[in-house]
Amino acid sequence: MKNFDYCNPTRIVFGKGSISRLPELIPSGSKVLMLYGGGSIKRNGVYEQVVSAASGFEMVEFGGIEPNPAHETCLQAIEKCRRENVNFILAVGGGSVLDAAKYIAAALKTDCTDPWEILTGEAEVNSAVPLAGILTLPATGSESNGNSVISKRSTKEKRAFGSPHVYPKFSILDPETTFSLPQKQVRNGVVDAFVHVCEQYMCRTGESRLQDRFAEGILQTLIEIGPDTIKDSTDYDKRADFMWSATMALNMLINQGVTQDWSTHMIGHELTAFYGVAHAESLAIVLPGVWRFALEHKGNKLAQYGKRIWGVSTPQEAIDKTEQFFQSVEMPVRLSDYEIDADEAAAKISERFRQRKSVFGEDGLIQADTVGDILLSRA
Amino acid sequence: MKNFDYCNPTRIVFGKGSISRLPELIPSGSKVLMLYGGGSIKRNGVYEQVVSAASGFEMVEFGGIEPNPAHETCLQAIEKCRRENVNFILAVGGGSVLDAAKYIAAALKTDCTDPWEILTGEAEVNSAVPLAGILTLPATGSESNGNSVISKRSTKEKRAFGSPHVYPKFSILDPETTFSLPQKQVRNGVVDAFVHVCEQYMCRTGESRLQDRFAEGILQTLIEIGPDTIKDSTDYDKRADFMWSATMALNMLINQGVTQDWSTHMIGHELTAFYGVAHAESLAIVLPGVWRFALEHKGNKLAQYGKRIWGVSTPQEAIDKTEQFFQSVEMPVRLSDYEIDADEAAAKISERFRQRKSVFGEDGLIQADTVGDILLSRA
Repeated sequence: MKNFDYCNPTRIVFGKGSISRLPELIPSGSKVLMLYGGGSIKRNGVYEQVVSAASGFEMVEFGGIEPNPAHETCLQAIEKCRRENVNFILAVGGGSVLDAAKYIAAALKTDCTDPWEILTGEAEVNSAVPLAGILTLPATGSESNGNSVISKRSTKEKRAFGSPHVYPKFSILDPETTFSLPQKQVRNGVVDAFVHVCEQYMCRTGESRLQDRFAEGILQTLIEIGPDTIKDSTDYDKRADFMWSATMALNMLINQGVTQDWSTHMIGHELTAFYGVAHAESLAIVLPGVWRFALEHKGNKLAQYGKRIWGVSTPQEAIDKTEQFFQSVEMPVRLSDYEIDADEAAAKISERFRQRKSVFGEDGLIQADTVGDILLSRA
Repeated sequence: MKNFDYCNPTRIVFGKGSISRLPELIPSGSKVLMLYGGGSIKRNGVYEQVVSAASGFEMVEFGGIEPNPAHETCLQAIEKCRRENVNFILAVGGGSVLDAAKYIAAALKTDCTDPWEILTGEAEVNSAVPLAGILTLPATGSESNGNSVISKRSTKEKRAFGSPHVYPKFSILDPETTFSLPQKQVRNGVVDAFVHVCEQYMCRTGESRLQDRFAEGILQTLIEIGPDTIKDSTDYDKRADFMWSATMALNMLINQGVTQDWSTHMIGHELTAFYGVAHAESLAIVLPGVWRFALEHKGNKLAQYGKRIWGVSTPQEAIDKTEQFFQSVEMPVRLSDYEIDADEAAAKISERFRQRKSVFGEDGLIQADTVGDILLSRA
């Protein structure tokens, strides 16, 4: 096992009815910004639950955070927080709203001319306005980590930052708030969580037997309950297992002490930036391609995964099974399913990585040319 | 899944050489009490590592915390802390030293005539002196939770308390500090961690698929590396997996949202109090007896455990396999192995529970008479 330094201070308040606990969770005297997305929380009753539970606090609202939250929108929210002297941010929604809240919270306390410098690494985050989450879409794990991904619409850039200062103080996870989600979003969440685990797990064998078992446990759970919870939103226990799996998939536990990959995400981000496919959709396209490309390099771990998760004996079968799992939840796995021209995507995205001189993945296995080959294989 | 409220703020600094990071971890200006046990840290070099790394801090020492730490000894340490104006406690050792540190830290900030009131529940812990750990004996998980077990020698009582205020601020886990441990202590640690998981796992099925998988993952890891790491102390990776498994076994993660049991611990504590058998030794005696007694009640979960962990098909075989695992690491499983008279033990311990009107275990299945029967079955 590699050395590691792990702390996750986010308090998880899990279960039905948990939103009613807001009064004991938000520091007294807070001036709260309630941040949310496209308004689904106004249709499913979550908005009313939050407003009612937090009625003892002075609160202002900012709605309209979009999927793949835009830097440009966040700038408006930052302005509003300054104007209103907000000192606590309550993100109500999915990973996008959480990510936006972190960016806004950090920007309010970071010395920079343009907050985008936080994303480029030019500005250092040394403090942030305290924030918390009420999660309504299990997928990204953002409710229990210090990471944020923000997109700049003007340049079609998608960048990430991380800081211990933007871990949510608490996150409320009530599976019932997810009952009204469209099937497609639940499907995306299942696949997103699945691939998050894979990025942290599918590297060399033997670095940590326990971290491997934890990762495998999340995968097994997602496989076991994923198809059912997509179809039947009101099975509380399965939805609860899904919600908790998505959090554990990216709360920085399973990656401690082990090598990670993340090349599927690197390539997927560009597919989203250029073609607008949803984050999870991009991952389902890319992952089998990365694994087939790295078949030899990751052979031992693919074999372990195949044996323990799918009961198959070869790395190739393990990849096939994974692709079939995505298809079993009606997740497309090919560029052509979105009418994306593979030649064009390969050319554009490999060119972008060439310009950035990007080298990534386990042992730097993936470079610009590799990305082109991988995307061509996903036509 | 049941509702839960989970937060583990302890920072884990894991890996070889980590003690050297003390200067960045202890708050500057702290007056530190270095608390330790019987002096093994002076023989294996850990004492020198700590003193050297913490040379920038004003530090006083208190040695002599015993296994099953004594209230009486802790009183002396509390007195010393008061005299020396200590404002940070650094526990260097195993679970006993950590537990003592928590008791001392809480007592220093709790309004009571006798700190023992913290253990009886008469005094409430609302604050504590900050504490941290350098773990040298993986077993109890105390390095990453808010629990403490203290014994009163004068009355042969063993009591526990828990508080969010006594979570260590950080714990350093360097597997190399455990290389010099006697085999017997490593064996005890493996069994202790194993039984901790069982107490949180072996209840009803289906409450949380993910928590089950995590618990099973720890058990599988302990089974896989336990026998080897007991025999070969210098295999770093296996020792690291053992150390991390013991922490994860009782850092309050795997019990969230699920029913727990803990009757093996309740009965084991009394065996330790009356007969002085080590904590883990008491657990290995009691666990198979509790499970056989609860064979019908826990049948479904025993079957799941047997199938997933041991590849056997009946609850009875699953229990047999567990007993055989203990024996494979040379852990005795019978009262007679310690020359304890089962009739006497059954009478004394069931009488104590009768006086206390104790009812415990999953669904209150265990009462005074049951305890007698269980102990008789472990003759």
